[in-house]
Amino acid sequence: MSVDTKSAAVPNGFLFSTIEAAVKKPGRKDLALIYSEKECVAAGVFTTSSVKAAPVRLDMKLVRSGAGRAIIVNSGNANACTGQQGMKDAAEMGRLVASRKGISADGVYVCSTGVIGTPMPMERIRSAAPGLVEGLGKATIEDVASAIMTTDTFPKVVSKRKKIGGKIVTFTGICKGAGMIRPNMATMLCFITTDASIGGKALDVALRQAVGRSFNRITIDGDMSTNDTVLALANGMAGNETIKLKSASYEIFAGALAELAYGLSEMIVRDGEGATKLVEVEIRNAKSEKDAERGAFAIANSLLVKTAIYGNDANWGRLMAALGYSGIAVKEEKVDISLNGLMVAKKGVAAGVDKEANEKLKDKKVKIVIDLHLGNGSAKVLTCDLTEDYIRINAEYRT
Amino acid sequence: MSVDTKSAAVPNGFLFSTIEAAVKKPGRKDLALIYSEKECVAAGVFTTSSVKAAPVRLDMKLVRSGAGRAIIVNSGNANACTGQQGMKDAAEMGRLVASRKGISADGVYVCSTGVIGTPMPMERIRSAAPGLVEGLGKATIEDVASAIMTTDTFPKVVSKRKKIGGKIVTFTGICKGAGMIRPNMATMLCFITTDASIGGKALDVALRQAVGRSFNRITIDGDMSTNDTVLALANGMAGNETIKLKSASYEIFAGALAELAYGLSEMIVRDGEGATKLVEVEIRNAKSEKDAERGAFAIANSLLVKTAIYGNDANWGRLMAALGYSGIAVKEEKVDISLNGLMVAKKGVAAGVDKEANEKLKDKKVKIVIDLHLGNGSAKVLTCDLTEDYIRINAEYRT
Repeated sequence: MSVDTKSAAVPNGFLFSTIEAAVKKPGRKDLALIYSEKECVAAGVFTTSSVKAAPVRLDMKLVRSGAGRAIIVNSGNANACTGQQGMKDAAEMGRLVASRKGISADGVYVCSTGVIGTPMPMERIRSAAPGLVEGLGKATIEDVASAIMTTDTFPKVVSKRKKIGGKIVTFTGICKGAGMIRPNMATMLCFITTDASIGGKALDVALRQAVGRSFNRITIDGDMSTNDTVLALANGMAGNETIKLKSASYEIFAGALAELAYGLSEMIVRDGEGATKLVEVEIRNAKSEKDAERGAFAIANSLLVKTAIYGNDANWGRLMAALGYSGIAVKEEKVDISLNGLMVAKKGVAAGVDKEANEKLKDKKVKIVIDLHLGNGSAKVLTCDLTEDYIRINAEYRT
Repeated sequence: MSVDTKSAAVPNGFLFSTIEAAVKKPGRKDLALIYSEKECVAAGVFTTSSVKAAPVRLDMKLVRSGAGRAIIVNSGNANACTGQQGMKDAAEMGRLVASRKGISADGVYVCSTGVIGTPMPMERIRSAAPGLVEGLGKATIEDVASAIMTTDTFPKVVSKRKKIGGKIVTFTGICKGAGMIRPNMATMLCFITTDASIGGKALDVALRQAVGRSFNRITIDGDMSTNDTVLALANGMAGNETIKLKSASYEIFAGALAELAYGLSEMIVRDGEGATKLVEVEIRNAKSEKDAERGAFAIANSLLVKTAIYGNDANWGRLMAALGYSGIAVKEEKVDISLNGLMVAKKGVAAGVDKEANEKLKDKKVKIVIDLHLGNGSAKVLTCDLTEDYIRINAEYRT
């Protein structure tokens, strides 16, 4: 049984708060808090970049305990490339919550997103902290999703309900993304809360699988952030028997988490900076799944492909070129390419339907399917087109 | 002794011709011929893509002989992804020249650049061939450089004269580039002619070295073409003693070839599609030269870096982010970054000079120097900024 809710259902026992701290500038709520009434099992996946923001380094330490209670998060400043002071500031953000709630600072995760290389305006965070904690319960999860936006144009929330062991379990995930998105880690920030009761190992495995099939298979501009973080908190308040790895309950749980993550990752791509189209690149029958994934990413990251799609130009030669330099096994004379169901190249040469194909590209969702006829490896990667607006957004981001 | 000439000096014994074949559409000379009165020593470097255009596959076979006499080249159609017919068409283009000049078709290299996946309009090439061959000697090297342009905004010609073994040797190189430029192979097409007398092995080694330090260290959009070709023809008419590897003459020759190639590669970047600025990314004191090159390419290919430079935004955090995900050894707390001579980050944290740095970025040439303080590997990569015009050019290329 599965109930997909449009307005976000939230798991039992989670409270939310948002407040204006004017981190970057005044005028919006840019500091948020997620808090569970009960101690949670926690898992996290973080950027693989060697340059990690201070809060990422902090959270990577905290998550080793497998437990957590709260997440404090700000937009406007990434607290990255801020040296030792950045580490102190991240730790202080956790303590600002912990001291007021009478919990251990080891249970308060800290996340930041925004400009890199600028010290955190801690005096403003300190001033806002009391109001933030007092406000718990007054904000919705949508408010939190809005507070963490940077260049995102809409808040991203997905909720799911599943029956697990006779109990209704609720999952709610939020994320922010837009730019600096690419595999290994994709979303800059994603927070998943659930009232399921689950073991730490099981949550960790389920989260890693979900991220591998969702956030790690999307790309907007090939850039990866210093701050990418996915955190999952499970407080057990649904009252189900604790889920263990390899059980039937685990399969339901992991499936729900995967759906949730995929839904959020698709939202990120839809909201790619300046994007007008969602593009799904599927490679079929590659020599291996790894080849399929690599080929799909080469295409999804190609500026020439992304601009052609923006221009409604069924320039499949650019797909062939990207496949060619991707380094995967390709036999040109075996390649079939279709765009939104229309075969534009058959056995590596033109099918002579460019005009019809250009029309197909006017759809807001473009599905590229490439059959390599070499093996049975397949993979799908989500991306978006590249437009003048991407340039404008990113040329003017700090100004 | 070295004389850099602004108007292109051309080596003895080379003749040029251009004609309108209306390959893509009428209105410009789009078919060109380079011809040597004497048999030449030849060397070539080609795209490493697994999807190679028909003329590239042909030339890779021809160059095994180490000899050549002529190059026929068209713009408007890449003759790539055109199957068996494409191979036949490329071979016929060579024969159209060979039969009229009474030379072997094995000495006629064929190059094409333009749209991928469209059959060559051979009837128009055939009609234009007699006029092309008859016109030899009536066109200049600049005319050839113009004929091979696609989205290039200016023809690219570099000439050099060197005294080798008491004789004046002339080198002239032309190329076209603009988009689809990245290492392993960069320029889509580059032709270098010289009247030096040189051994085949020596020419091959010198060409590979020159390409490795020039065309293979530039990037515009990270895309690599199916048609990338660098050909060098040396006809010996300067009358110098034949240059052998490891001789003093070889060093002069190789040096001149390297300068020529670097000059041409810089022109390609200056003419990057939509570019307003030339950007040099230098990584110093990396753990190895390979690390330095990889880090420099990660930065040079980052859309976020390229758009920030376009927007005069000294957003050095994006440089750190790109270094971070490049996978090279980086110790954040050791990194120094300067922009056009101004230190913007010292030991990984802001130097607090963002406003001055934004001013520095208004220069048309931007020099990024990053000192990793980890070893002694260094590398420079050339690129350009990314603008709305790049999107426009590539969204509308075929329409």
